[in-house]
Amino acid sequence: MDWSFLDSLKFDQSGLIPCVAQDCETSEVLMVAYMNRESLTDTVNKGLASYWSRSRKKYWIKGETSGNTQEVREIRFDCDLDCVLIRIKQNGGAACHTGMRSCFFNKLTPEGLVEDGQRIFDAENVHGKQPTAS
Amino acid sequence: MDWSFLDSLKFDQSGLIPCVAQDCETSEVLMVAYMNRESLTDTVNKGLASYWSRSRKKYWIKGETSGNTQEVREIRFDCDLDCVLIRIKQNGGAACHTGMRSCFFNKLTPEGLVEDGQRIFDAENVHGKQPTAS
Repeated sequence: MDWSFLDSLKFDQSGLIPCVAQDCETSEVLMVAYMNRESLTDTVNKGLASYWSRSRKKYWIKGETSGNTQEVREIRFDCDLDCVLIRIKQNGGAACHTGMRSCFFNKLTPEGLVEDGQRIFDAENVHGKQPTAS
Repeated sequence: MDWSFLDSLKFDQSGLIPCVAQDCETSEVLMVAYMNRESLTDTVNKGLASYWSRSRKKYWIKGETSGNTQEVREIRFDCDLDCVLIRIKQNGGAACHTGMRSCFFNKLTPEGLVEDGQRIFDAENVHGKQPTAS
């Protein structure tokens, strides 16, 4: 692997680059998250998407706890080399921690935002939470 | 139009939110750019994508000079309300200022980045530049 491209990339002042994850079969945009140099290198090496969580301030292998990993089929960078696009196979069917297939389930309508997406699982049942009594 | 959603969005410390522009017919990811509150409002109102250029530090209607405007068909926000996805009709066929259909023409291979995309126009002939003698 020729890693010299890493030095061409424009990571921001926090050392991050935004990454769009797109379904390799349907081309649906599933999520946008951030990578640092380490998570991008690991994504290339292991073929599983890993990111940097800005809220938890930690390295994060997508699906490590939920099993909803992302198998990377293709990696692209934009003209400015400041954004990543990965085409992935979404294991478990859902990219979003809420249980929706795509994170982009908030559709803008004249009445405001409405939920418009495919629910794959009940988010109460994952990430170590107990299911509700109902 | 109920604009209250604007107050729910998480613009960053610079007042910006990243926006993924996706072709409404092919679902190809064409570009990622940034919007501030004004450009997002105008995008909704006018139905043409406008952004905030971080490099030129100015409001920017996509295609204003080149004619390669983006007609907005759908606007979505992600679960964290810190990213926009617009599905658009790309007039002129090219989203990228380089003349490529998509900005994401840099494909990662074991040998590094290779150009892999559809060229729509010769970038020398737009944006006020004179064509080369050849």
